[in-house]
Amino acid sequence: MITQNIIGFELSSQSSEKIYAVDPAHQINLPGAFSPATKDEVDRAVQKAQSAWRIYRNIESKRKALFLTSIAEGIENLGDVLVKRVMQETGYTEARVLVERRRTCTQLRMFAEIVEKEVWRDITIDEALPERTPAPRPDLRKINVAIGPVIVFAASNFPLAYSTAGGDTASALAAGCPVIVKAHESHLGTNALVAEVIMNAAMNTGMPDGVFSSLNGDGIETGQQLVMHPMTAGVGFTGSLKGGRALFDLGNKRLKPIPVFAEMGSTNPVFLLPQKVAQDAQKISSQLVESITISTGQFCTKPGILVAIDNFETQHLIALLEATLAQITPAVMLNESIAHNFHKGVTAVQAESTVRLSESNSNNDLILGSALLAIVNADMFIANPRLHQEVFGPFSLMVLCKDFAQMLDVAQSLDGQLTATVQATQDELLWVHQLTDIMIEKAGRIIFNGVPTGVEVSAAMTHGGPYPASTDSRFTAVGNSAIRRWLRPVTFQNFPEGLLPEFNAILDKPNNPINP
Amino acid sequence: MITQNIIGFELSSQSSEKIYAVDPAHQINLPGAFSPATKDEVDRAVQKAQSAWRIYRNIESKRKALFLTSIAEGIENLGDVLVKRVMQETGYTEARVLVERRRTCTQLRMFAEIVEKEVWRDITIDEALPERTPAPRPDLRKINVAIGPVIVFAASNFPLAYSTAGGDTASALAAGCPVIVKAHESHLGTNALVAEVIMNAAMNTGMPDGVFSSLNGDGIETGQQLVMHPMTAGVGFTGSLKGGRALFDLGNKRLKPIPVFAEMGSTNPVFLLPQKVAQDAQKISSQLVESITISTGQFCTKPGILVAIDNFETQHLIALLEATLAQITPAVMLNESIAHNFHKGVTAVQAESTVRLSESNSNNDLILGSALLAIVNADMFIANPRLHQEVFGPFSLMVLCKDFAQMLDVAQSLDGQLTATVQATQDELLWVHQLTDIMIEKAGRIIFNGVPTGVEVSAAMTHGGPYPASTDSRFTAVGNSAIRRWLRPVTFQNFPEGLLPEFNAILDKPNNPINP
Repeated sequence: MITQNIIGFELSSQSSEKIYAVDPAHQINLPGAFSPATKDEVDRAVQKAQSAWRIYRNIESKRKALFLTSIAEGIENLGDVLVKRVMQETGYTEARVLVERRRTCTQLRMFAEIVEKEVWRDITIDEALPERTPAPRPDLRKINVAIGPVIVFAASNFPLAYSTAGGDTASALAAGCPVIVKAHESHLGTNALVAEVIMNAAMNTGMPDGVFSSLNGDGIETGQQLVMHPMTAGVGFTGSLKGGRALFDLGNKRLKPIPVFAEMGSTNPVFLLPQKVAQDAQKISSQLVESITISTGQFCTKPGILVAIDNFETQHLIALLEATLAQITPAVMLNESIAHNFHKGVTAVQAESTVRLSESNSNNDLILGSALLAIVNADMFIANPRLHQEVFGPFSLMVLCKDFAQMLDVAQSLDGQLTATVQATQDELLWVHQLTDIMIEKAGRIIFNGVPTGVEVSAAMTHGGPYPASTDSRFTAVGNSAIRRWLRPVTFQNFPEGLLPEFNAILDKPNNPINP
Repeated sequence: MITQNIIGFELSSQSSEKIYAVDPAHQINLPGAFSPATKDEVDRAVQKAQSAWRIYRNIESKRKALFLTSIAEGIENLGDVLVKRVMQETGYTEARVLVERRRTCTQLRMFAEIVEKEVWRDITIDEALPERTPAPRPDLRKINVAIGPVIVFAASNFPLAYSTAGGDTASALAAGCPVIVKAHESHLGTNALVAEVIMNAAMNTGMPDGVFSSLNGDGIETGQQLVMHPMTAGVGFTGSLKGGRALFDLGNKRLKPIPVFAEMGSTNPVFLLPQKVAQDAQKISSQLVESITISTGQFCTKPGILVAIDNFETQHLIALLEATLAQITPAVMLNESIAHNFHKGVTAVQAESTVRLSESNSNNDLILGSALLAIVNADMFIANPRLHQEVFGPFSLMVLCKDFAQMLDVAQSLDGQLTATVQATQDELLWVHQLTDIMIEKAGRIIFNGVPTGVEVSAAMTHGGPYPASTDSRFTAVGNSAIRRWLRPVTFQNFPEGLLPEFNAILDKPNNPINP
């Protein structure tokens, strides 16, 4: 395992310090003494990325696609070594890690396909109209190009799919942007294994030195240096509101501001309409409990707020939820800080006298997360912004409304969200319509009779949403369109054909994707 | 002429203050005592826009298109009244105003067509795959929706095409966003005439109260209040770097940041290759002089930097340019502040001992702008960031290079630009290729053998570019794609068909624009 920083095709460990990944289940340092990146190493990585950009953005799509698929193969070839390291560093089960590995490789192959199809270039041509009056129209040809070096911050809860070779990296590399990954302190070993794969894939497929770098971080400083570097052109981040907002602010206060796409907090409200609750309590309960507790609730799409009408059937559903949650064995959380914040969040909710907490399968081991439901009435919820905050972990807050009008009030009171969900019968569709009309202003994805967890990686996916779900609701972090965060249009006016090889290569393709 | 603020369908003048537009040619107040907007009026306008958004975004495209074309008709019907007021407020010639009026109306009709075609919705459908293993795929349907109320700041130099009913307003209304225009202090009367047309068009075509408002500004404060209002969702601005950056910073420091698209400064470098200069000096000279002095140089695409090899032919070109510029009659500038800044900018360049200034048709009347060329060698230019700054007005700086290698150094030294231009012969295409490879990183549009002025309003146009040309190089302020600044995607998962009327309406269209 490489414990140095990977700067292009070079390994570097200038610092005399060492940092270690921790096994959260046993609270012990794992093998691997990693070198944190120095300021000079940060600078070299970005300088190399800038030089690489000039070559990489012009490499033909077929070869970029090969690079991406080689990364996927390399990750698969790591086999058990990777799977075990991920499990050690995260406390996740083998099943969970295998699902995430598959998702990561599928995502890389999807972006390989996307690159080759060239649709992302949005080629648009206005042909010259030399005879037009009062003024002729020039020949205009528009094409998307890569914005430049992109910094990717690895996410604590997705050590593979949103980290070193995750969605941000895959989409940025597909766009033609070199990537510098800032490893997450919690999974330095996972990062090292995957970063080595990417470095090898880059060498084997003839990519330029600097197309990928991986830096180990010593807290906040490395990240700040990366975002503030004058050659950095964009940033991808998945994590907390606090962390995302700090990076966003940094990116904007630069002499030359850059786009920082941060996917941050969300409480993912689930609206439970009364007839549906009456008919399907058992099914809703199992669906929700799984969605709340899967991976110990450490999903950004975990349903953190449930909204229902306060009646006999809802009380029955609450009893079912409480009983089922109590059966969930407390599981180890990703790291000490996340476990600490989870307990702090639960304690803060508990401190509100208006909130009733369900009996939990509580534990004294602070690294474990015990699944928990809290209940509050809608008046109190609307009046108390603290209860609107995300509690990251296996926790959900049931908000009880007097009637449907109050359910609409609750919807109106909510912040921006990654998702909103409505559970309803066919007889309740008019109500669904009203809720949707509110939540369309606030959420990136709206789900009917399902749960918010399970984010499909596909063309029609939106994983983002109004602030604080993301820093820019016009983009998505997941799915084909994620590539658009790293692209900008350039128009060529009256250019000789020979100087526009990219247009010609694409125009020659059968079924070329040119806009009319 | 309405001198009050227009707040939806209501006229309001709470303030006892009055503000006036000034005729720059005669430095006298023009008729019309306008009420500046109070804080309460700002709040009411945004509140109304928010309410209107909920209705307006769901209005069918055909009716929105009718609204936009009604505005175009209304502007045309104002006839001479509007043309004369624009001339008085700007000092522009009638010919110039007529061109801008045509451009404005064409733009409104273009967005009417765009709305109806629905391509901007980017409808994308992933059909359900219930049999897929290991997990079924849900039905996912993605559609773009309007982000919410948009603030448009009227631009000093385009009182029609980038102001009240200009590109920002037309694209935002097309996207389904209500618009609040902050009138420019210099053309309050032009704004009032056009705003009344928009208000009437909204009433006549059944648009909701609040879909459009127009507020008169008392300097910076009204703008700040509009950007900071919690219900504001986006901002469009065309103007100075200082003004644009201030609004951008405001938008980002909000509790909930919003996109501020500011199109700001650019020096629009023109690279003149030696064989071309030797062959076509006369033609280049006339093209450039027109481009530098049209509308008294008050275009954001005015060529502010010319880059050539220092040789006999270039000295001949300089002599031609100087002689032709000296024949241009000094013309009145848009307002006192712009004239002041122009003279300040020229004086600052003049103060640099390394710069030689051409003889100008100078004048003592500070409201007039005299066309002027300055000459500096490339070493000095590269070393002096002050010379890289835009001087807004009929001025250009010729940068003389020792050789082509130094011309590439000059290109590398430049900031982000709206445009870059190369003038070259067919024999010089390899050099064009090298320059293009640098300027593609820095410019939104690259022109071959032309001039940067003349921005086509069409599908393939990019009017934007890396900072400081704009605050976000991924978008354009002109052309079909300008609508994308005001749209965000929402994905519907497993939704009953009856609840997605917009999809069905679009799917039923012949040649529907659905992505594969």
